[in-house]
Amino acid sequence: MAKSKFEYVKHFETEDRCLPNCWIVIRIDGKAFHRFTDVHHYMKPNDDRGLSLMTKAAQCVLEEFKDVVMAYGQSDEYSFIFKKNTKMFNRRASKLMTNLVSQFSSSFVFYWPRFFNKQPLQYPPVFDGRVVLYPSDKNLKDYLSWRQADCHINNLYNTCFWKLVQEKGLSPAQSQERLKGTLSSDKNELLFSDFGLNYNSLPELYRKGSVLIRMKETDAEQRGDRELHNGMRTSSVSFESPSDPSSKLPRIATLHSDIIGEKFWREHPEILDG
Amino acid sequence: MAKSKFEYVKHFETEDRCLPNCWIVIRIDGKAFHRFTDVHHYMKPNDDRGLSLMTKAAQCVLEEFKDVVMAYGQSDEYSFIFKKNTKMFNRRASKLMTNLVSQFSSSFVFYWPRFFNKQPLQYPPVFDGRVVLYPSDKNLKDYLSWRQADCHINNLYNTCFWKLVQEKGLSPAQSQERLKGTLSSDKNELLFSDFGLNYNSLPELYRKGSVLIRMKETDAEQRGDRELHNGMRTSSVSFESPSDPSSKLPRIATLHSDIIGEKFWREHPEILDG
Amino acid sequence: MAKSKFEYVKHFETEDRCLPNCWIVIRIDGKAFHRFTDVHHYMKPNDDRGLSLMTKAAQCVLEEFKDVVMAYGQSDEYSFIFKKNTKMFNRRASKLMTNLVSQFSSSFVFYWPRFFNKQPLQYPPVFDGRVVLYPSDKNLKDYLSWRQADCHINNLYNTCFWKLVQEKGLSPAQSQERLKGTLSSDKNELLFSDFGLNYNSLPELYRKGSVLIRMKETDAEQRGDRELHNGMRTSSVSFESPSDPSSKLPRIATLHSDIIGEKFWREHPEILDG
Amino acid sequence: MAKSKFEYVKHFETEDRCLPNCWIVIRIDGKAFHRFTDVHHYMKPNDDRGLSLMTKAAQCVLEEFKDVVMAYGQSDEYSFIFKKNTKMFNRRASKLMTNLVSQFSSSFVFYWPRFFNKQPLQYPPVFDGRVVLYPSDKNLKDYLSWRQADCHINNLYNTCFWKLVQEKGLSPAQSQERLKGTLSSDKNELLFSDFGLNYNSLPELYRKGSVLIRMKETDAEQRGDRELHNGMRTSSVSFESPSDPSSKLPRIATLHSDIIGEKFWREHPEILDG
Repeated sequence: MAKSKFEYVKHFETEDRCLPNCWIVIRIDGKAFHRFTDVHHYMKPNDDRGLSLMTKAAQCVLEEFKDVVMAYGQSDEYSFIFKKNTKMFNRRASKLMTNLVSQFSSSFVFYWPRFFNKQPLQYPPVFDGRVVLYPSDKNLKDYLSWRQADCHINNLYNTCFWKLVQEKGLSPAQSQERLKGTLSSDKNELLFSDFGLNYNSLPELYRKGSVLIRMKETDAEQRGDRELHNGMRTSSVSFESPSDPSSKLPRIATLHSDIIGEKFWREHPEILDG
Repeated sequence: MAKSKFEYVKHFETEDRCLPNCWIVIRIDGKAFHRFTDVHHYMKPNDDRGLSLMTKAAQCVLEEFKDVVMAYGQSDEYSFIFKKNTKMFNRRASKLMTNLVSQFSSSFVFYWPRFFNKQPLQYPPVFDGRVVLYPSDKNLKDYLSWRQADCHINNLYNTCFWKLVQEKGLSPAQSQERLKGTLSSDKNELLFSDFGLNYNSLPELYRKGSVLIRMKETDAEQRGDRELHNGMRTSSVSFESPSDPSSKLPRIATLHSDIIGEKFWREHPEILDG
Repeated sequence: MAKSKFEYVKHFETEDRCLPNCWIVIRIDGKAFHRFTDVHHYMKPNDDRGLSLMTKAAQCVLEEFKDVVMAYGQSDEYSFIFKKNTKMFNRRASKLMTNLVSQFSSSFVFYWPRFFNKQPLQYPPVFDGRVVLYPSDKNLKDYLSWRQADCHINNLYNTCFWKLVQEKGLSPAQSQERLKGTLSSDKNELLFSDFGLNYNSLPELYRKGSVLIRMKETDAEQRGDRELHNGMRTSSVSFESPSDPSSKLPRIATLHSDIIGEKFWREHPEILDG
Repeated sequence: MAKSKFEYVKHFETEDRCLPNCWIVIRIDGKAFHRFTDVHHYMKPNDDRGLSLMTKAAQCVLEEFKDVVMAYGQSDEYSFIFKKNTKMFNRRASKLMTNLVSQFSSSFVFYWPRFFNKQPLQYPPVFDGRVVLYPSDKNLKDYLSWRQADCHINNLYNTCFWKLVQEKGLSPAQSQERLKGTLSSDKNELLFSDFGLNYNSLPELYRKGSVLIRMKETDAEQRGDRELHNGMRTSSVSFESPSDPSSKLPRIATLHSDIIGEKFWREHPEILDG
């Protein structure tokens, strides 16, 4: 059992340190979630339980990995942003992505019953992950804008698609055919004229996705985000749990804000500035 | 919402294809499992429930990822071997490791109640993962030997350590001090003379760890591994579930064999030969 | 001048160690050599001076880098094979490829006058380089076969092309048109019937390229490669310089052998076996 | 000669694209230049011929590779900066570094006689190369500051060392011992009190190294760098060759400026701004 004569195999591991002074983004995506949502009877086009569970799993990631300064999620994906100069795991890409995807996956299963009550989880879901580096603040903001624009485009399409199926009785194929080649303006018009729905009146959660940041509650108060105190989840900001009102420690806040424009970044300069 | 102007950010992703014609090994390790086993009252030095749950999670990986030809696990780690010429995920390291670590993590939580019954899981556990490439069969076998030798060395030490603590009433520090500088032969002697324990009589599960391979049940029968039919888990081979006796399809078998010597590889040439 | 406050920039360098136990191949290619050969009035389709200079530069590489066990060259390219377990530059890809390409480039310029006499070099030529890893002997031999098959295919085409241009007076465009869609057999037939040329009678240097290996002169003698002693470059083997006849040290031999078949590898087992 | 059955080996090449939106720096270093300078009787501590030849080779690089916006050289090394968004060779690290190191090496040999006249080059010199990425302008400037601070520190030491050897008759070992533990201020004082030399009166070429940038001659004139027109190499700026006075095209200028302070970057904003 001379372990030492086998230890040379350790040298086959390669270093995969992320370039310093870059934003490290880890995006987690559900694998085969079309099937997963079917099997688990998700509401279409948006299932509040499913979206809340995704956000809960993301909150677990932020609680465990203190160098994650922000997360953005929509549909079956979540992106996590590490602070630019993080030294976590010596910036090794493998360590970073596997730890996050593991925390996310096990949290998703762990908290399933809290959101889906009596409906049992049928099988263990799988998420994949990837690491992408962005050298500049602009690159990072453009990445997040890309994901939020994707959220909007998909949600507008899906809202139309499911209205046609659920309320007009079209088959999925017919619905798809009806929407082929339509512009955003066409879809907005369709929703308004055929279904009396103003797209912009839909919850921001559906249209904008979810933004997790670390925020001092007092800051939220000063900015007038007072609705968080009446205990209801609102579109502007919510915290995971009630806190000591005198606490000055940052807590994880969930927003459904626009992050494409500059307003968000002006209001939260600490995200990029560290 | 011109998504297209943000899409340039996709080009920041880098390719991480694994070199062709190499064995791809993915090792998954429990993070902070010392604390995890304490919180969940694992038996020391070995907890059958915990080891079985690890193996169950590994079996889920083999069921979902058909190109995994073998797995080896011990303590809080599991290594997965892909067939040499796998084309899965175009051999992208990130995809391979995140999918496996996610499947493993969510399966671990999903199947927790089956193994720990009424004792609830306290928090979502985390596993990390890494990819290592081995060009030759010898390198791969030496890697597996390294892990199995590690299993043996740790188990021998832990068996002594906990005997001293549990049966002699030594404190952990005293126990550690007692074992300092001892050789394997010293530890075997200690177990025998002070505790009447022949180390080699301990279950192979503890001494050798667990080997998962795909095996036709009929092959196992022909080799005399018949004990699997009485439904109890034995040291030689067990299958996950009862099967159609006429089935010729390979199923996942769990062995606790020595994989350092050549015997195992002679008996299972299909693992390396594809 | 506090150098220390800038030294953090060293941490932006990344490690690029080649996977252990793989064949490291470095291929060097002439950049814009079509123009280079025109400017320097190379004979078409093959210029003995140019080919000899390439081989001279490659010999310099083998003399300086003792872990290179073999080189194969044709046209404006040369491939260098490091011994499988080389520790040179700690196997760092950047170091290996830049050192080799630099040695090759400066040697090419340095020895230009020896091969082109009074015809001066007009400008500094450029070569690029790349590193490729091959895990198995078969992969390595297939790589070399690929390059030698490329040599054959190009040389057969070029021989026809230039015969048509130089002896039949076709324009390059007409010559290209004439050869479009022809098979190897067609080209062999064209050379024989139109130009009375048996392709296989052309020098092996042109048809097979050049193979550099380290060989004890006495071995060459024993194998009957005696023509090297009459001082003329032959197709079978030549050494760079006269040597002490009693020397047992390996010297760099230049062959123009077939390396696609097994014969070469049977005769030179030491290349792969180290 | 079925080339196609070998072509699979192409898939063993890996992509090594540099991360977008980063400064690409390629540093070239002389290999074993201590020996090289001894064999070629370089003046110590600085040889004008050797330094000029290095700069000539670097100029060749800038002439061939139009995306190189700046180079900095000292001693036996030169660093080349590509414009941030270069698409050259699709940003492949291997291609970039091997092309540059090859151009540099062959140019060094090609232009040797122009700088060393009758003294022949004894053997082909070798340079290695590496690629380093810097995400921000500050990182890039700090990198260049690091190299220029290195130039200063080494030159101050070498100036003292060789004064002690050449003028005081100390052995190299004695000279080294004399300088052990001395601060910059001590060395300045030594030069002044023992040799009557004001270190700052030494040529900027020695103290600052060489900076190559692309500059419109008219810009140089307007900034009062007129001394370039009297044909002598000055500390402020020199151009490779006389030019058409009406030319507005940028040419390669050689400066020996301080690049640690902000003045240089204020005067040449186009380097970083593209």
